[in-house]
Amino acid sequence: MNPDITRERQNATFDVEKLTHILDGGYEKTKRRREIEAMVFSDPDFKEEDPNFLSRSERYDQAVKKSAQMILKLREYGIADPEEIYCYKNCVHPDRPEPFDLHLGMFLPTLLNQATPEQMDRFFMPAWNLEIIGTYAQTEMGHGTHLRGLETTATYDPATQEFVLNSPTVSSIKWWPGGLGKTSNHAIVLAQLYTQGNCHGLHAFIVPIRDLDTHVPLPGIVVGDIGPKFGFSEVDNGFLKLENVRIPRENMLMKFAKVEADGTYLKPPSTKLTYGTMVFIRSLLVAESARALSKSCTIAIRYSSVRHQSEIRPGHPEPQILDYQTQQYKLLPLLAMAYAFTFVGQYMRQTYHRISGDINEGDFSELPELHALSAGLKAFTTWATNSAIEVCRMSCGGHGYSRSSGLPDIYVEFTPTCTYEGENTVMMLQTARYLVKSYRQAQAGQQLSGIVSYLNDLKHQRVQPQPVAGRPTVVDINDLASLVEVYKQRAAILVELAAKSIQQELHHSKSQEDAWNNSAIDLVRASDAHCHYVVVKLFTDKLGEVSDTAIHSVMSTLALLYALHGITKNSGDFLQAGLLNVPQVLQISNRIKQLLSQLRPNAVALVDAFDFHDNRLKSVLGRYDGNVYENLFEWARRSPLNSTEVHESFHKYLKPLRAKL
Amino acid sequence: MNPDITRERQNATFDVEKLTHILDGGYEKTKRRREIEAMVFSDPDFKEEDPNFLSRSERYDQAVKKSAQMILKLREYGIADPEEIYCYKNCVHPDRPEPFDLHLGMFLPTLLNQATPEQMDRFFMPAWNLEIIGTYAQTEMGHGTHLRGLETTATYDPATQEFVLNSPTVSSIKWWPGGLGKTSNHAIVLAQLYTQGNCHGLHAFIVPIRDLDTHVPLPGIVVGDIGPKFGFSEVDNGFLKLENVRIPRENMLMKFAKVEADGTYLKPPSTKLTYGTMVFIRSLLVAESARALSKSCTIAIRYSSVRHQSEIRPGHPEPQILDYQTQQYKLLPLLAMAYAFTFVGQYMRQTYHRISGDINEGDFSELPELHALSAGLKAFTTWATNSAIEVCRMSCGGHGYSRSSGLPDIYVEFTPTCTYEGENTVMMLQTARYLVKSYRQAQAGQQLSGIVSYLNDLKHQRVQPQPVAGRPTVVDINDLASLVEVYKQRAAILVELAAKSIQQELHHSKSQEDAWNNSAIDLVRASDAHCHYVVVKLFTDKLGEVSDTAIHSVMSTLALLYALHGITKNSGDFLQAGLLNVPQVLQISNRIKQLLSQLRPNAVALVDAFDFHDNRLKSVLGRYDGNVYENLFEWARRSPLNSTEVHESFHKYLKPLRAKL
Repeated sequence: MNPDITRERQNATFDVEKLTHILDGGYEKTKRRREIEAMVFSDPDFKEEDPNFLSRSERYDQAVKKSAQMILKLREYGIADPEEIYCYKNCVHPDRPEPFDLHLGMFLPTLLNQATPEQMDRFFMPAWNLEIIGTYAQTEMGHGTHLRGLETTATYDPATQEFVLNSPTVSSIKWWPGGLGKTSNHAIVLAQLYTQGNCHGLHAFIVPIRDLDTHVPLPGIVVGDIGPKFGFSEVDNGFLKLENVRIPRENMLMKFAKVEADGTYLKPPSTKLTYGTMVFIRSLLVAESARALSKSCTIAIRYSSVRHQSEIRPGHPEPQILDYQTQQYKLLPLLAMAYAFTFVGQYMRQTYHRISGDINEGDFSELPELHALSAGLKAFTTWATNSAIEVCRMSCGGHGYSRSSGLPDIYVEFTPTCTYEGENTVMMLQTARYLVKSYRQAQAGQQLSGIVSYLNDLKHQRVQPQPVAGRPTVVDINDLASLVEVYKQRAAILVELAAKSIQQELHHSKSQEDAWNNSAIDLVRASDAHCHYVVVKLFTDKLGEVSDTAIHSVMSTLALLYALHGITKNSGDFLQAGLLNVPQVLQISNRIKQLLSQLRPNAVALVDAFDFHDNRLKSVLGRYDGNVYENLFEWARRSPLNSTEVHESFHKYLKPLRAKL
Repeated sequence: MNPDITRERQNATFDVEKLTHILDGGYEKTKRRREIEAMVFSDPDFKEEDPNFLSRSERYDQAVKKSAQMILKLREYGIADPEEIYCYKNCVHPDRPEPFDLHLGMFLPTLLNQATPEQMDRFFMPAWNLEIIGTYAQTEMGHGTHLRGLETTATYDPATQEFVLNSPTVSSIKWWPGGLGKTSNHAIVLAQLYTQGNCHGLHAFIVPIRDLDTHVPLPGIVVGDIGPKFGFSEVDNGFLKLENVRIPRENMLMKFAKVEADGTYLKPPSTKLTYGTMVFIRSLLVAESARALSKSCTIAIRYSSVRHQSEIRPGHPEPQILDYQTQQYKLLPLLAMAYAFTFVGQYMRQTYHRISGDINEGDFSELPELHALSAGLKAFTTWATNSAIEVCRMSCGGHGYSRSSGLPDIYVEFTPTCTYEGENTVMMLQTARYLVKSYRQAQAGQQLSGIVSYLNDLKHQRVQPQPVAGRPTVVDINDLASLVEVYKQRAAILVELAAKSIQQELHHSKSQEDAWNNSAIDLVRASDAHCHYVVVKLFTDKLGEVSDTAIHSVMSTLALLYALHGITKNSGDFLQAGLLNVPQVLQISNRIKQLLSQLRPNAVALVDAFDFHDNRLKSVLGRYDGNVYENLFEWARRSPLNSTEVHESFHKYLKPLRAKL
């Protein structure tokens, strides 16, 4: 054990193990997580070669091998709870996507949700037993978030009682689905349904794409891998071009909408049913943000505690990097953010579970708010985390660029969350749509409830951007409740500003749509402020649940740092709205410096509490024992370029070159 | 040619070719650049396999092959001007680092600058003819920017008249030098010189590391590749462990410092001589920032002009992405920044060349200012560009993640600039040191000249952070000269704030060093504001050189966007200092929207003017002809994972799995 990191742990003011339980959601959860980790990490079948030393094809090969093993072991150990499966998978493929992700996460659940009993009989057990391996083919080369734009067609032919599927253009080729390129033999294809001469919009069809026995693509199917990406090297994201592919009528998923034998189309009873899944997945992405950020902070902070560099006082030994104020200012606000997002993720999951019961009973009343919140928070947390991972990486100096640090991999595996499951700007605008609608309702005299109820107050307060001196300021910068209040007011003011921008545009005789587009900058800003308020509020609320005094103290400091740092980074908003005055902003800058010093001794303990096993962290810099340099050397020597002392290029090019010069 | 992009080009209001000449520095420069590009791109010896389809070892192999060809062709065509060599190299290895970079860019120049005539005779011609291939080994595993911390030792042994080189610890192993791992047979090693029992600090030694004939490492040398990184896959960044390696006394570079045969040490006449090179390289990095950003903007803006998505008005066809205000707000300020940084890069190069004559004649008077400026601007431009590349990538939706977009490669090849040649935070603090020193001189009554002369005014104006209402505001937000003035005042105020923070810390009886460290956040902020002012100023100054009316008009709009966007992103600073009032900040937000609309029709023309050849851009999304989708499909089909219809993992794992379930 590195003596620096040992000393850091001795200096902690709280019980790390207790904080881990809070993060996991209780002692029992921590225990079970560790059991699962032990199962996987001690299993020789899951020993892997470092993917960074493999070619793309070898990485895919190794991943398929491990995924197949994983299925066997899950059955063998009887692990069936979805959360436990998720945990097991994240140990087998340490937080990397894998070839079966869409089979397990989309193909099987879609069957469960949208297949008729007859379809369940035909498809579910073969799929459960991996005879059928499926994916979910929605996105096309030219079409993503905007589903109505999808071009793939499924035209019903009553003569043969079949659907004929086609990719009518290059841009309609299915593109990106995980596992589609090489792994799957079936796909649930989203296509525009045509029957009796009418288009009825998007519906889902089960399409066999490869021969079950030989795995060769079926006639009319052009399928393959979309090529190397920024990350996701273990996954065969694929393309699929359909050329007059015929499937039986019974392959349309018909639990809700139906096409009868003669081609008559029957509408689904409700369109809100698919909302729930979207909300659930976006909530998961908030938790993914927290995890990626926690891992990055663990690596950067542990390494900063064992890395010595430069000098603060001449003649003294090189200090730990973590003693530099600039390093603390880079990392500790991100650590606070990691905690904030963890608690937001917990809240989203709990809320989803709470209201999903209502949804199943046909009560959709809380869904719009949760839908709007999940869209915005997905964008807010993934964007913030995306930048933060890179700050962590760059805070590690040169070694952050080495694949051995683990940070490049965290970044490339995480960054797609900003785009998939709803592009972030589109997500922010969805939340904005809800906010503006709520604002207008409140203006019209309706009493809002839930998280947007702050918009009720606007018509009384007449809060508007105005000079700083114009409003009495009663904010206590050391009181979290007071800070939640200013974040709330900021959100209210920015929602109003966006709504008024739309109003103004309309006065210039623009259409509703142009007015919306011409206010989009303000709308995104309003959403962002709303989400920021929610995060500060949820972090503050969480403190009420923490009974351990020492943990409560350090969590409060983190929450305060999160809130105050957010204010300095957006101080223009708060000054502009007159919510804070100039002396307060200066006080906040000084207070932040104090909070950094206060948190400094607990920094390593606070990342230890995330409890990432070394096998999961996969980082030489973030090792629990802090023994970085000897292991970095060890890792480098295993690099494939070192398998021979002299690379063949010497004999092929370098030596012959001399003779020619 | 895609009709959308053709229409964009028809709508341009200025002559693209004329703007290209301005960017290149004149018609002749554009012509010569295109001649060199034509030479390389028509040369079958430089045809390459897409590196994204190759393994690490194959990428290195292909790079060595091309580098060897490059040396031959440069000699054959008689290309000897450093700028032309640089241009040729950037076509052969499209803006990628390559295995000979350090031989050409560091080993040969260091010989030229620091070798004695006798050493030139022994080493230069063999190195010129690639018999000796060298690198420059400075950074160690545990030591980077802080040179005094380097641990490698060179101990003089008068008995044999040799130096004995050692890596006394794991952290002292040389780490990172390009070309060290596999390519080089010599290294210039920076080591602590010990002679007659005293340490005389860092000196440079020429160390043979591999046998000239067999390329096998020499006795006492442990050398190899440091393993895969985030980018730089063509380069064998290496490690070097020295175990009692003996080299003749004559292998120390002795143009300045000397060790005589008996071990007597003779000091160098001046320590400032190495400053110049550092300044030059940092200036180059400003230009690199401009280039990486220009390329990213070219890709994102061209693709946004041919990509249709979602809807603004229901029922209408999907609009070009570039018509969304949010997309314009993402990309056009970055386009303005690309122009700004291009002009800053031009200024830095010109200034360096202007004063390097003085330096050679022993006049160092302008060097400290340029040194401070180059440090800060290196950090300012590389950080901003680093984030901006990712904004460009994410603005391309899913396809931005595909390696075919070119954006992941631009990012990973660029991001190390934030760390190498001086870690950015350290660079910002170096600039801050100069600013605070200048501030103190001004306070002491000294009259400052040059770019920091604005600090003279502070003692008269008593400019201090104060409530917004407290100061008369006479800023014209449409007048660039007026905006330069507010940026200048912001810088002055933040320098003063940082200097006062140090002062305050000292009052609390802290040491100078602790006071500095405890003010580091403010110091970085001051540097940042200083650099921001310089960039706005240089962009504005450049407009004076543009005589073409149409180009002057569009450049002025870009400069205004750059300046106003910077204000909104830092509005807290301007409000806090009372430099702008709240109504002005609101006006600026509206003005930015107008500027976006104004620039929209010229967006494609403005990136065309950067004139990146498709072979240099290497991006399916950024193609000049806009034919994105068919080429994306074409590219994907060539991916190695598609070389067989059925991947071997099906037979190895997937099929056998069924039998077990």
